[in-house]
Amino acid sequence: MNKRVITLGEIMMRLSTPGHERFVSSNQYNIVYGGAEANVAISLANWGISTAHVTAFPNNDIGKAALQYLRYAGLDTQYVYFEEGRMGLYFVENGAMQRSSKIIYDRFDSVFANFDGDKIDWKAVFKGADWFHWTGITPAISASAAKICTEAVNAASELGVKISGDINYRRNLWQYGKQPLDIMPDLIAKTNVVIAGLTDFENCMDIHEQDYEAACKKAQEKCPSIEYISTTHRNSISASHNGLSGVLWNGHELLESKSYDMTHIVDRVGGGDAYMAGLIYGLLEGEDQAALEYAVAASVLKHSIPGDANFVTVDEVSQLVKGENVGKLLR
Amino acid sequence: MNKRVITLGEIMMRLSTPGHERFVSSNQYNIVYGGAEANVAISLANWGISTAHVTAFPNNDIGKAALQYLRYAGLDTQYVYFEEGRMGLYFVENGAMQRSSKIIYDRFDSVFANFDGDKIDWKAVFKGADWFHWTGITPAISASAAKICTEAVNAASELGVKISGDINYRRNLWQYGKQPLDIMPDLIAKTNVVIAGLTDFENCMDIHEQDYEAACKKAQEKCPSIEYISTTHRNSISASHNGLSGVLWNGHELLESKSYDMTHIVDRVGGGDAYMAGLIYGLLEGEDQAALEYAVAASVLKHSIPGDANFVTVDEVSQLVKGENVGKLLR
Amino acid sequence: MNKRVITLGEIMMRLSTPGHERFVSSNQYNIVYGGAEANVAISLANWGISTAHVTAFPNNDIGKAALQYLRYAGLDTQYVYFEEGRMGLYFVENGAMQRSSKIIYDRFDSVFANFDGDKIDWKAVFKGADWFHWTGITPAISASAAKICTEAVNAASELGVKISGDINYRRNLWQYGKQPLDIMPDLIAKTNVVIAGLTDFENCMDIHEQDYEAACKKAQEKCPSIEYISTTHRNSISASHNGLSGVLWNGHELLESKSYDMTHIVDRVGGGDAYMAGLIYGLLEGEDQAALEYAVAASVLKHSIPGDANFVTVDEVSQLVKGENVGKLLR
Amino acid sequence: MNKRVITLGEIMMRLSTPGHERFVSSNQYNIVYGGAEANVAISLANWGISTAHVTAFPNNDIGKAALQYLRYAGLDTQYVYFEEGRMGLYFVENGAMQRSSKIIYDRFDSVFANFDGDKIDWKAVFKGADWFHWTGITPAISASAAKICTEAVNAASELGVKISGDINYRRNLWQYGKQPLDIMPDLIAKTNVVIAGLTDFENCMDIHEQDYEAACKKAQEKCPSIEYISTTHRNSISASHNGLSGVLWNGHELLESKSYDMTHIVDRVGGGDAYMAGLIYGLLEGEDQAALEYAVAASVLKHSIPGDANFVTVDEVSQLVKGENVGKLLR
Amino acid sequence: MNKRVITLGEIMMRLSTPGHERFVSSNQYNIVYGGAEANVAISLANWGISTAHVTAFPNNDIGKAALQYLRYAGLDTQYVYFEEGRMGLYFVENGAMQRSSKIIYDRFDSVFANFDGDKIDWKAVFKGADWFHWTGITPAISASAAKICTEAVNAASELGVKISGDINYRRNLWQYGKQPLDIMPDLIAKTNVVIAGLTDFENCMDIHEQDYEAACKKAQEKCPSIEYISTTHRNSISASHNGLSGVLWNGHELLESKSYDMTHIVDRVGGGDAYMAGLIYGLLEGEDQAALEYAVAASVLKHSIPGDANFVTVDEVSQLVKGENVGKLLR
Amino acid sequence: MNKRVITLGEIMMRLSTPGHERFVSSNQYNIVYGGAEANVAISLANWGISTAHVTAFPNNDIGKAALQYLRYAGLDTQYVYFEEGRMGLYFVENGAMQRSSKIIYDRFDSVFANFDGDKIDWKAVFKGADWFHWTGITPAISASAAKICTEAVNAASELGVKISGDINYRRNLWQYGKQPLDIMPDLIAKTNVVIAGLTDFENCMDIHEQDYEAACKKAQEKCPSIEYISTTHRNSISASHNGLSGVLWNGHELLESKSYDMTHIVDRVGGGDAYMAGLIYGLLEGEDQAALEYAVAASVLKHSIPGDANFVTVDEVSQLVKGENVGKLLR
Repeated sequence: MNKRVITLGEIMMRLSTPGHERFVSSNQYNIVYGGAEANVAISLANWGISTAHVTAFPNNDIGKAALQYLRYAGLDTQYVYFEEGRMGLYFVENGAMQRSSKIIYDRFDSVFANFDGDKIDWKAVFKGADWFHWTGITPAISASAAKICTEAVNAASELGVKISGDINYRRNLWQYGKQPLDIMPDLIAKTNVVIAGLTDFENCMDIHEQDYEAACKKAQEKCPSIEYISTTHRNSISASHNGLSGVLWNGHELLESKSYDMTHIVDRVGGGDAYMAGLIYGLLEGEDQAALEYAVAASVLKHSIPGDANFVTVDEVSQLVKGENVGKLLR
Repeated sequence: MNKRVITLGEIMMRLSTPGHERFVSSNQYNIVYGGAEANVAISLANWGISTAHVTAFPNNDIGKAALQYLRYAGLDTQYVYFEEGRMGLYFVENGAMQRSSKIIYDRFDSVFANFDGDKIDWKAVFKGADWFHWTGITPAISASAAKICTEAVNAASELGVKISGDINYRRNLWQYGKQPLDIMPDLIAKTNVVIAGLTDFENCMDIHEQDYEAACKKAQEKCPSIEYISTTHRNSISASHNGLSGVLWNGHELLESKSYDMTHIVDRVGGGDAYMAGLIYGLLEGEDQAALEYAVAASVLKHSIPGDANFVTVDEVSQLVKGENVGKLLR
Repeated sequence: MNKRVITLGEIMMRLSTPGHERFVSSNQYNIVYGGAEANVAISLANWGISTAHVTAFPNNDIGKAALQYLRYAGLDTQYVYFEEGRMGLYFVENGAMQRSSKIIYDRFDSVFANFDGDKIDWKAVFKGADWFHWTGITPAISASAAKICTEAVNAASELGVKISGDINYRRNLWQYGKQPLDIMPDLIAKTNVVIAGLTDFENCMDIHEQDYEAACKKAQEKCPSIEYISTTHRNSISASHNGLSGVLWNGHELLESKSYDMTHIVDRVGGGDAYMAGLIYGLLEGEDQAALEYAVAASVLKHSIPGDANFVTVDEVSQLVKGENVGKLLR
Repeated sequence: MNKRVITLGEIMMRLSTPGHERFVSSNQYNIVYGGAEANVAISLANWGISTAHVTAFPNNDIGKAALQYLRYAGLDTQYVYFEEGRMGLYFVENGAMQRSSKIIYDRFDSVFANFDGDKIDWKAVFKGADWFHWTGITPAISASAAKICTEAVNAASELGVKISGDINYRRNLWQYGKQPLDIMPDLIAKTNVVIAGLTDFENCMDIHEQDYEAACKKAQEKCPSIEYISTTHRNSISASHNGLSGVLWNGHELLESKSYDMTHIVDRVGGGDAYMAGLIYGLLEGEDQAALEYAVAASVLKHSIPGDANFVTVDEVSQLVKGENVGKLLR
Repeated sequence: MNKRVITLGEIMMRLSTPGHERFVSSNQYNIVYGGAEANVAISLANWGISTAHVTAFPNNDIGKAALQYLRYAGLDTQYVYFEEGRMGLYFVENGAMQRSSKIIYDRFDSVFANFDGDKIDWKAVFKGADWFHWTGITPAISASAAKICTEAVNAASELGVKISGDINYRRNLWQYGKQPLDIMPDLIAKTNVVIAGLTDFENCMDIHEQDYEAACKKAQEKCPSIEYISTTHRNSISASHNGLSGVLWNGHELLESKSYDMTHIVDRVGGGDAYMAGLIYGLLEGEDQAALEYAVAASVLKHSIPGDANFVTVDEVSQLVKGENVGKLLR
Repeated sequence: MNKRVITLGEIMMRLSTPGHERFVSSNQYNIVYGGAEANVAISLANWGISTAHVTAFPNNDIGKAALQYLRYAGLDTQYVYFEEGRMGLYFVENGAMQRSSKIIYDRFDSVFANFDGDKIDWKAVFKGADWFHWTGITPAISASAAKICTEAVNAASELGVKISGDINYRRNLWQYGKQPLDIMPDLIAKTNVVIAGLTDFENCMDIHEQDYEAACKKAQEKCPSIEYISTTHRNSISASHNGLSGVLWNGHELLESKSYDMTHIVDRVGGGDAYMAGLIYGLLEGEDQAALEYAVAASVLKHSIPGDANFVTVDEVSQLVKGENVGKLLR
C-alpha cells in the first residue's frame, strides 16, 4: 500500500530469559528492541507501508544496535536522534500454564525521557504522511515527552494527517507530577482513531461507564473528531492459552470480530500493538469490519512469534481472516 | 526382526530455525539430514531391521557430514555414492497456534538430481532384501532420478522383493518435462503396498473418485499387484494441535485405526514417513489391523520429536498402541 | 516465617537434554542439582524459612559446583560433608504429547551411599529446628544411608522436632539386602506427617487397602504419632497435559483440594517435592485445608518451571490458591 | 563523509559452524549474509557513507531475511531485485593453529547468476554517486552477470563516477564458457582503482611480471585510466596468526604500509573486502599514504570480528593507524 | 584461613556479548553480577575466608537474582539491603587482537547510588571482622554513597579493623558535585593498605610524582597509617596478550613481583580486583614478597576465566607462584 | 588403505564445559564419547581403514547414544556388547594461559569394568584383521578387564595379527589389587609397537633408565617381539601453547620428528591417541620416518579440534607433513 505512517515513542532494549526460565534462574538474555509505537511501525513496515519512527537513542553502541534493529525491521530511521543518556530497558520472563508472564521495567531517566525534542521539525516529519500514531505511554514518561507528544499531535492535526492514539493507561508511569487528566483529554480531542478500554476511559477521559458502547458514545460526544474507538477482549485461561477478539465502534455501531482460541502462546508481548497496527492498516485499506478482522488476526499471529515485533505478511493475516492455511505445513 | 529393507531417494540437509523463530528473525539453523525415503529407513533401522539406503552425496565435507548422520541413524551406507555437485537443502520454520509451519526447498540441480546411477548394481543391492521402498518424489526430481527409480522397481519386482511406494504427489516438482502420468503408473503397477490419498490417485493414477474405498478398488483393478493401500487422516486444528488416524485397504476391507489427539506438536515434519515405516514394519511382522495401529502410533510419536527422524523404539510404539505408559514419567 | 527446617538426603547432578531432544539425539546437557529432600528444602528456603540440608558431596570440583548450587538456592550448607567418591547422577529426557518423559539414574556407589555419617552431631543439627523432613529414598540407598536416616529420625523424635516423611517407594532401589518392611515401619512410627499412596502403604507399611481413607485410618492405628497423611492425584492425559489435586487426612476427615488442569507442562520433575514443601509450609503456617491448597498450588506452579527446584514466591502460590493473577502478563 | 558509493554483486547466505567445530561434527550453523562487494558497502555504510548495493534475491523468506540483514548493516536497498530462484550459499569452517579454514561454495544457478538485470536503470542508480565498486567475481559467475557488470562499468564510466575493481581471480568460477581475458580487460580499462596481485595480473590482464611495481607500470600503460593499484601482503604463520600489510601504487611510487601482527585471529573472511573499503574511504577522504594505512588498519580490525562484515567505526580504524587505544579495555 | 573480611560497594548486572561479538551484532547477553569490591569478596570467599558484602539491591526479581549470585559465590549476604530502585548495569564487549574491549556503564541513579545506609549498624557489621575493603568508586557514585563509605571507614578504623582501599580513580564518575580531593584524602588517611597508581596519587591525594617509590613515600608521610601501597604494571600488547607484574611498597622498600606473559586472555575484567584480593589474602597470611607474588598470580589466573569473579583455589594460585602445574592437563 | 584394525577398551561419556568455563561456573555440558583406544580407532576409520572396536555399553538410552556416536564416527560396532550397568564418565574443563585443563573421572564400577567378556569369540573378531591395539588403561581398570585384554593379546599374537600397545601408566587406576608389574610385562612381551615414556618403562616394565634410547634397547632385549617404541615430547608453555614432537625407536636408531609449535590449542585431550593412530597408519603404509612424521602431524591437528576424536583426513595430515596449505583459507 502506498501510504506513509509516522510513529513517535520510546524504544527500549528488551531482555528476555530463554524458554520459560525464571529471572532468578537464568544466566542469559535474548535481546530485541521494542516499544508500543515502534511495534506498530514495524508491523506496518512489514506490510509494505513507508513508516518512520521518531525517537531518541543514547549516543553509544547500545543506541547504534537499537538503530540497526529498527533498520532491520524496515523503519525509516531518519528521525532517530542520538543524545547522551541511557537506553530504557525492560526484562521479560515468559510464563507458562497458571504462572504469569512478568515484565520488569527499568526505563526511568532514559535518553527519551530527557529528550526535549527541540530539534524535531514536525512539518518536515509529516510531509507526505497519511497517518500519525501515538500512545498514552509517551505523555506519561516525562514533562518533555508529554510536550513532544503534544507538539506532534498538534502538528499532525493542523496538517490534516489522520491520528490514532492507543490510550494504554499505566498506573506505574505518570511520576513526573502531572496526572493523565491534565494532558490526555487534549491529545485525545485531536485523535481520530482511539484504542481504549473502560479503565482508559475512566483515567484518561473521565468517562465512567460500565457499558463499552455507552462509553464510546460519550467519548465521541466529548471529542467529535474521534471516528473510531476500539479495544480487544482477552480471555486469559492461562499464560499459555488465551481467547482473543476485538470490537470497533465506528460512530454508528459496535462491530464485533471473530473470536480466536490461542492455545499455545509463544509470546504475548506486543499483541496489543499488533492489533493497533492491523487496525491502522485495515482502515487505510478499506472497510470497517474487514479492518477489525484484520486487526484481530494480526494480533493472534503475533502471539505465535517470539519478541515484540510481528513479523508476518499481509497474506498470512488475510489468510487467517479467511480461515485458509491455518496451522498447516506449507511447502 | 531379521529382515532387510532397501530404500532409494534424495537426502537433503535440513536447516531449521530454533524454537518458533521465523526465517526472517533467526540467525541460527539447526542441522539434520532428511528425505522421505531415508526417514523411513531410519525408523526401520531403529526398530532393528537391517536397512540400506541408496543415494548420492556431494564429494565434499557436506556430503561426509550427511554420511556420518546416516551411519549415526543406523543405516547401511555402502550404497551411498559420492559425486561432484551440491547437496539439496530445505529450510524449516516451525509454526505455532494458527501460524503454519513452512518449508522452503532448495533442491534443484542437486547431486542426486544429476546422478545417473549407472554404478548401481541393483542385483547386488537387493541380495538378501525383503522389501524395497520408493516414493513419488524420486521420479519427480529429474529424468535420471526417474530412470534410477524405474530400474530399482523393475529389479526388485523381478527378484521378488516386496515393494512399497508412497505416491506423495508434489506439484512443485515435476519440472523436467515429464508428467506424473507418464511415469508413475508403471512404477505403481509393480508396487505391492501403496500410500496414496485422493489427490495422489488423481494425479498419478488417473483415478477420479470421491470415495477412498472406491478409489482403492479401482487402483487394485488397474494394478493387480497392489495388495495394500493406505493413507492418513490429519485434522489440523492448529500448527500445535492435530488429530491423526489412518486407514488401510487390504483388498477386502478398509480398516480404520484408532484416532489420536496430538495436542502439543513438537515437529510434524517426517510424520508421514514415520507412518510409512510403521506400516512396513507392521506388515513384515504380522496382522493387518495391528500393522495399521503400529503405523499410526509411530507417526504420533514422531510429532513429539525434533527433526525428521523418528527415534523411538518398538516398545514405545507398541505401548502407545496398547495405551500403556502414555505421557508418564518413566524412571 | 521464622521457622527452621532440616532435610536429609542425597543430591544428584541432573543432566537434562534441551527442549524435547531425546537422549539418543542430544549433544548437550543442562545441569542442575536435585534430590527429593533438597528440592523440598529449596522450596522452603524460597519462602523465607531457614533451611539446612544434610548430605555428602564428592571432594572435588563437581562437589563444589553442587555446593554452590545449594547456596544459590538459599540453603544453609554447613552440614554438607565432603568425602572421596562420586556424585550420583540422573539424566532427564523431557517428553511431549503421548511420549513419556524418562529418567535414567546413575546413583549407585555414590559418595552419599557410602557416607557413614559418623561426623554428624544430630543434636547440633536439630538445635533450634522446628521440623525434620526425610523420604523413603534414603533408607533404600544403602545400609549406611538407612542408618543415618534412622539416627536422624530418632534424634528429631527425641528432641520433639516435628517429622515429615515422603514414603516414595521405588522398586529399583533397595538393592543392598534389606527390604522396605525391615526398616520403614520404624521410621514411619516416629513420623508425624506422611506422604503415601496405596502402593507405599502396601510396600512400606504392610497395609493392603483399596480405599485411601481406610488405609489412612489403619496407618494411624499402627502408628499413633502420625497426624497427617497426604497424597496427590495426578491424571496423566499426556506428557504435556496433566490434572492435579491432593488429599489430606488429618485424623478426622479426608480433605480434598481444588483440582488443577496443567495444560502446557514445562517440567514435571520435582512436582511431588513441591507439594511436600507446600504442605510443610502450610502446616507450619496454619489451617489444614489452607495447607492442602497451598501444597497443590505450589506443585502446579512447579510444573511451569524448568529444573527440579520450585523457584516461586509465597505470593505467587497464594495468588494461585485465590485464583488471582493466574496466567496474566504482570508489569 | 558526505559521499555516495554504489556496489554491485552477489550476496550469499553464509553458514558457519560455531567456534572451531569442523563441518563433519557440527549440528548448528550461524547465519550472516555476505559477498565481496556488499562487504565493502557495509564497511562504508558503517563509516557514514551513503551506500547502495545492487543485487538480486530470491522472492521468498530467505531473500527477505537477506534484505533485512542489508538494512540492518546500513545499506540503501532500493536496488535489490526479487526474483524466482535460489540464494547462493557458502559454508565456513573456522580453522585454528596449523588447521586451515575452509569455505565450501554452493552458489551455482543462483538467483543472481540467472538475473538478467534488464530492470536496472543505471543512470538512475548512479545519480548522485561518487564511486562505483565491482569485483572480478561478478563477471565470473554467468554470462548475464558479466553483462550486468559491463553495463554498470560502462554507465559509471560515462557518468564520470570513480570506479574501483577488485580483480579477485577465482579459478573455480568462470564455468559458463568465457575466460577472464575475454571480459576482464575491458572492465579494467575503465577502472580507476584496482586491487590486484600478481596472479590477477596474469589471469585477467595478461601481464606476466615477477615484480609488483613493474606489473603496476605495465597495467597503467595498458589502461591509462587506472590511477591506483593495490594489494595486501599476508603472512600466514597459522590459521590463528597472520601478518598483514599493504602496498599502493599511485602512478608514481609504490607506497608501503605499516605491517601488523594479527596474533589471535577471530575470523579472516572478509579481510580483503575490509581493505578495499578502507582504500575507497581513504582515497575519498584524502592523501595516498593515509588511505593505504587506513585500509590496512581496517582490514586488521576485521580479523577480530566474527562474520564477513567489518562493524568498526572510523574512530577505531584511525586510532589503530595512530597506535592509540590498541588492545586496551575502554570504559 | 580463619579470618573475616567485610567489603562495601555497588554490584551491577554485567551483560556480556558472547565470544567476540560486537555490541552492534549480538542478540544475546550472558549475565553475571560484579563490582570492584564484591569481586574482591568473592575471591576471598573462594579461598576460605568468611566474607560479608554490604550493598543495596532493588526489591524485585533482578535483585533476588543478584542475591542468589552472591550466595552462589560464597558471600555472607546478611548485609544486602533491598530497596525500591533499579540495579546498575554494565555491558561488556570482549576485544581481540588490536581491537580493544569495551565497557558501557548504565549505573547512574541506581538503588545503591540512592541508598542512604541509615539502616546499617556498622558496629554489628564489623563484629569479629579482621579487615575492611573499600574502593574509590563508592565515594564517586553519589553523596550518600560517599557518606556510607566514610561511615564505614570511620567505624572500621575505630574498631581496629585493618583497612584496604583501592583508589581506582574514574574520571567518568564524580558527577554529584564533589571532587575526589574533597573526600578521598580523609578516607585514605585511615587506610592501611592502598592500591594506587600515579594518576590515583595525583587526583585523589594531590601527590604529583613521576617516580612510584617517591610517590609512596610522600603518601606515607601524608598518611602515617598507610602500611602498604601497591599497584600492577600491565603491558597491553593487544587485547589478547598482556604482560602483568606488581609492585608493593611496604614502608621500607619497593618489592617487585615476577612478571607474567598472558598470551591468550579470556576475560580481563576483574583482573585488578583479583590482585587486590590476592594482596589481602597474602598479607593476612604472611610475608610481604609472598603476598605480592600471590596477588599477581591470582590476577593472572583471573584473565583465563570468563566473568568478573576469580573462581580459583588457593592451591591453584600457590602452584602458579611456584611454577608448578602451569598450563598442564591435570587428571 | 585396505586394512583392518581391531581396538579394545572402555568408552566413556565426556562432559565438557563450554568455552573456558570452569566446572564451578558452568550450567551446561557438551557431550561426546571417548576412550584412548576408541579415539585411535576413530582416527583410523576417518582415514579409510576398516576398524572395529570391542567394548561394553549399558543396556539403556545412554548406551544407545554412545553406540550411535561410534557409528557416526565410522566404527564397525558389531563387537559392542550391551549389559546392565552404568557408563563411565569424565568431565573436562578446558584451561587457558597458565590455568591448566582438568579432567575428573567417574569411571569406577562401570559396565566395562564389570564386563567379563566371555561372549567374545576372539578368533572371529580377529578374522581378516591386520592389527590389534590395546592400552595400559584396560588392564588397570579391573580384574575382568585385565583378563579380557590378556585374552585379546594372546589371541592376536597367536593369529599373527600385529599388536600395538600404548602403555599409558596411570597411577589413579590399578585399584583392584594387582600392580602393573603383575600384568603388563606379559602383555608387552607379545606387543610389536609400544608407546612408552620413561615413567611407563619404570612402572610397567621395571626398566629404570634416564636415557630414552637406552630404555628402548633394554625393552627390546627383554621383549624381542617389540619392533618399535615411540613417545611424544610435549613442551607445555601454557594451556594454550605447547610444542610437540615425537621419537621412534625402530630397533636400529632413534628417529626424531619435526617439531611443531601449537600456539592456539583448542582441545588437547586425545592428542596422544591421535599420535598413536598416526603411527599405526604410517607403519601400515610404509616407511619409518614417514610414519613418525605422519603421527606427529596428526596429533598436532587434533589440538585444533574440539572433542577427543581427530576428524581430519589423510590429505590434511599429509599436507601438514609437507608444509602445504598450513593455516590458510581454503576455498
